[in-house]
Amino acid sequence: MKQSLGSKTLAYPAPVWCVGSYDKNNAPNVMTAAWGGICCSKPPCVTVSLRKATYTYKNIMAKKAYTISIPSEKYAKEADYFGIASGKDVNKFEASGLTPAKGDKVDAPYVAEFPVILECKMIHSHEIGLHTLFIGEILDVKADKNVLDGEKGVPDMEKVKPIIFGPEIRTYHGVGPRLGLAFNLGMDLYKAGK
Amino acid sequence: MKQSLGSKTLAYPAPVWCVGSYDKNNAPNVMTAAWGGICCSKPPCVTVSLRKATYTYKNIMAKKAYTISIPSEKYAKEADYFGIASGKDVNKFEASGLTPAKGDKVDAPYVAEFPVILECKMIHSHEIGLHTLFIGEILDVKADKNVLDGEKGVPDMEKVKPIIFGPEIRTYHGVGPRLGLAFNLGMDLYKAGK
Repeated sequence: MKQSLGSKTLAYPAPVWCVGSYDKNNAPNVMTAAWGGICCSKPPCVTVSLRKATYTYKNIMAKKAYTISIPSEKYAKEADYFGIASGKDVNKFEASGLTPAKGDKVDAPYVAEFPVILECKMIHSHEIGLHTLFIGEILDVKADKNVLDGEKGVPDMEKVKPIIFGPEIRTYHGVGPRLGLAFNLGMDLYKAGK
Repeated sequence: MKQSLGSKTLAYPAPVWCVGSYDKNNAPNVMTAAWGGICCSKPPCVTVSLRKATYTYKNIMAKKAYTISIPSEKYAKEADYFGIASGKDVNKFEASGLTPAKGDKVDAPYVAEFPVILECKMIHSHEIGLHTLFIGEILDVKADKNVLDGEKGVPDMEKVKPIIFGPEIRTYHGVGPRLGLAFNLGMDLYKAGK
């Protein structure tokens, strides 16, 4: 039996992404966002949504450039911190002890310790309400060699260990056991239904 | 040491969401999408991106209405199937044995067996490239009572057991162990950095 919970942002899973940008003095900043997702394959693009009140919002509007650093679960504490503090008040890289590295493709810093990094050029913004949606074209992905799958050469989720966020209940989780392969698990049903 | 992997949709985690819509004959259809995420808190909105070639794209453009049914991991096979077959060729509800239920708030069907459902009104579309991004206002969320947290009354990720998708490597995973609470894990760093 289903219960109606009203109009709420209850969609699972949500990501934990750390958005890197430079401010007008070229000081590096990073903030955590969970409102985002991939939005196009060609060109490869992601969305991330931010409130106008954030320091990062102003930085992105000025530079049209940002990074997304994907923390592994061992950095859950730092990632959470990046979502609590504001770059208006503190240099979050210094306070956390993590290292800002300058992007190659865009004028924005990333978190050197995190295993996967996306360098994004802001190609579109759309005001929805409390949040503004940014569409970023992914100009490059950088990953630590030790998180790559030996065969396919792309990051293995079990090695990246990204953090999963549960909206409203506010829990962080790790990635669980592998259930199967996409475009494979459902193939029996496909053959039977043709 | 980081390796450059080029311009690719390598962002983790991605969701596994089943998008329900009616076609012009009011036949229910459902397709799986992994390109999406929450995009605004007020009004509560989600993005989902679809190729124009999909049956669902045409249905949403005509009805401006769809649902997102979030499968639990025990339905990984059916969810994968919904991403392989097309509603042009087959009634995927019938082929999978799952049940279409009509939304209360929008003219679109959802998957009755899945634990969490979002009813969405399409409020904006934006052509990016291969994919078109849809912004849907979440008019209602429905959840099975047995996935709700007893205290907070919102879905508990450990009970919902949503599927996590790894782009490019194409693996599905379950949700892993709880790492901590958001706006809490990083509080020590916040207090120290003030």
